[in-house]
Amino acid sequence: MATRPHVVIVGGGFGGVEAAKSLSSADVDITLLDRRNHHLFQPLLYQVATAGLNPADISAPIRAILRHQDNVTVLMSEVAAVDPEARLVELSDETTLTYDYLILAAGTRHSYFGNDQWEQHAPGLKSVEDAIEIRRRVLLAFERAEASHSDEDRQAELTFVVVGGGPTGVEMAGAIAEIAFRTVARDFRRIDPETARVILVEGADRVLGAYPASLSRKALRQLERLGVEVRTETMVEDITADTVETNGGTIRSKTVVWGAGNAGSPIGATMGVELDRAGRIVVDSDLSVPGYPDLFVVGDLAAAESKGKPVPGVAQGALQGGRHAAQAIRADLSDKPRSPFRYRNKGELATIGRSSAVGVIGRFRLSGWIAWMAWWLVHIFFLINFRSRAIVLFSWSWSYLTFQRGARLITRAWRADTQTTDSDTDEG
Amino acid sequence: MATRPHVVIVGGGFGGVEAAKSLSSADVDITLLDRRNHHLFQPLLYQVATAGLNPADISAPIRAILRHQDNVTVLMSEVAAVDPEARLVELSDETTLTYDYLILAAGTRHSYFGNDQWEQHAPGLKSVEDAIEIRRRVLLAFERAEASHSDEDRQAELTFVVVGGGPTGVEMAGAIAEIAFRTVARDFRRIDPETARVILVEGADRVLGAYPASLSRKALRQLERLGVEVRTETMVEDITADTVETNGGTIRSKTVVWGAGNAGSPIGATMGVELDRAGRIVVDSDLSVPGYPDLFVVGDLAAAESKGKPVPGVAQGALQGGRHAAQAIRADLSDKPRSPFRYRNKGELATIGRSSAVGVIGRFRLSGWIAWMAWWLVHIFFLINFRSRAIVLFSWSWSYLTFQRGARLITRAWRADTQTTDSDTDEG
Repeated sequence: MATRPHVVIVGGGFGGVEAAKSLSSADVDITLLDRRNHHLFQPLLYQVATAGLNPADISAPIRAILRHQDNVTVLMSEVAAVDPEARLVELSDETTLTYDYLILAAGTRHSYFGNDQWEQHAPGLKSVEDAIEIRRRVLLAFERAEASHSDEDRQAELTFVVVGGGPTGVEMAGAIAEIAFRTVARDFRRIDPETARVILVEGADRVLGAYPASLSRKALRQLERLGVEVRTETMVEDITADTVETNGGTIRSKTVVWGAGNAGSPIGATMGVELDRAGRIVVDSDLSVPGYPDLFVVGDLAAAESKGKPVPGVAQGALQGGRHAAQAIRADLSDKPRSPFRYRNKGELATIGRSSAVGVIGRFRLSGWIAWMAWWLVHIFFLINFRSRAIVLFSWSWSYLTFQRGARLITRAWRADTQTTDSDTDEG
Repeated sequence: MATRPHVVIVGGGFGGVEAAKSLSSADVDITLLDRRNHHLFQPLLYQVATAGLNPADISAPIRAILRHQDNVTVLMSEVAAVDPEARLVELSDETTLTYDYLILAAGTRHSYFGNDQWEQHAPGLKSVEDAIEIRRRVLLAFERAEASHSDEDRQAELTFVVVGGGPTGVEMAGAIAEIAFRTVARDFRRIDPETARVILVEGADRVLGAYPASLSRKALRQLERLGVEVRTETMVEDITADTVETNGGTIRSKTVVWGAGNAGSPIGATMGVELDRAGRIVVDSDLSVPGYPDLFVVGDLAAAESKGKPVPGVAQGALQGGRHAAQAIRADLSDKPRSPFRYRNKGELATIGRSSAVGVIGRFRLSGWIAWMAWWLVHIFFLINFRSRAIVLFSWSWSYLTFQRGARLITRAWRADTQTTDSDTDEG
């Protein structure tokens, strides 16, 4: 085999997988690297965190997705650093890969704005592991409340705080309220789950700040109808094991979910290139890094612009970016000029809870039941493989009819530390 | 409310849940304790360990199962010790519960026959956490082989050893062979999963020693047809990170599953009562502990006899034992004599792999396709709640038709230790 250009793709999320697929007929050898073996349908991750779906319902092995594409080798490996001068990717096992083209699609992680000590008390929601940890904490809170001997502890166990009023925070708050007020409402003897409090804390003056103000108002009303207390213009000042300190007072709570900030993957900082304040890599109009035409960044990790406006960190942005990078490589290989990246906003939808959502599609603003149906159809449709689609359809229909949740599983034993025979690993 | 007798049940497995249900109309207050929040359909746990089913498909929250039974309080707590003289259950959070009746259904854990250092290299299969850990190791072995730079390492990664030729070992070996030779056969580029070896090691001279010899022979043939190497009369002498030493030589393998021995829950040893060699509690003919008529042991933790023969440690034994203990309590409450426990063997089935199984039902010995259909129907039927039943039905039909497995998820990041932003928890 003649040496064909070697395209390395870092990250098996929406951007990375789409880039690989878009190169299926190109005369290149592709190596796709990911720390995990699975592609994740991240928009539904909050459903795993709230016991509505199984982790595997929204995941598919990356190598199974790309099985029939012979020019791709998938490797489960972690990238430690990238050297764009030497065109080298360094892996954490100290081996290296050279590339002719690199597509970085490594995404973002949570940012606690310099307060990393909050993370242990307020996990964020990026990975399957995160979702399972949040599920564990939410379900365990009710269990601990039932076993509790003090009223004060019980109320702290039954107070849930979600930090951040963006789409993730709104989804999480709505879903936790549904668990407390519907799913487990009759499962306990000593506590009444309906006395639980779900508090959504947002620094700005409205939730869903990226949406039109009229939809924020509708989302607020829908959240309140679900029993969520929304506190806008409220800044978190400290988080401990059992309190959230805000400029509006102290909340006693043992279960906090973080949905407030993102920062680019640490790979960006190893490259000696320009980053924005959130640690994302600044890219040119063709999504390549200035000075390195062979290095593309797509998805959440890219600080990209389209028609003078920042490209939002959503699935559509990653998919279109991955496709664009692949196209630019194909253009190079056939000596054609690259075109600039144009983000096409196909609409945005945020679900709030059972039967309610808000969204903008083209010129239309949707809310309530119709927005929820739209959200639901779009998400079912985009789930990658058929099996997941059918299972998710079934799980949801079932949950919708019965108010039950199919994945109410707490993994890791209760005080596993005292039990020497326990393996130290967890599930879902 | 007048003080009704307090029945404490330890363990939410088959025995404990069945005991609670059988006391639904009794004039007692029941507290059911379990370290986990979920009841587990253990006979299908090997399907989780081999990525065929989701953990939640075979689990249901204990408190959801008993939701409508008002005389039961479910507490997620760990039992540290039992004092049968004082009728006290000590919990690991240092609180205590007193009881009028105690039903111990705490099950067994793995036994390494004094070689506990083997556990880290050869996990057993009792809990959802165990299953997820085994799934992680099996799937990761293929990933590591694909990334490997040495032939010797690659072969060690692709060699799977299952220790113990009982039902669990046979199921695991058959399912791992199916993964290697069918599910992932075409997913890799650098390795050929069909060069994998799956070795089943058994000390006795045949697999499935509890079954008639003719069925053991059939099981052996079916295993060999699936590509499993069966080594009988082979004793394990040592297990390290990459070898299994046996009296028949050394096997280079990095993935070992333990299915060879069980020991009673450590609670037994805290009670000052007679245990058998496997740490199970010796019980009278009514399943109560000699000298303590208010203390019953049911399920795998009981060394019980019925008609002069030991009661086997299977789901049916636990279900019938739980029902019997409840009946004895009801007899006491209405001043009637207790009856002795009679185990009714409804038959036994062991599945070996895709479309094959062996079993004994009454006077009939089954094998092959018909045994597999029987096994399948029985397991679907006994799955506790409808939702699971339908999902499992769907998952299995899908897997059967496509050879795919729906839960091929490796949770916990690749070398998570080097990634400070990772939460340290796992899934499934």
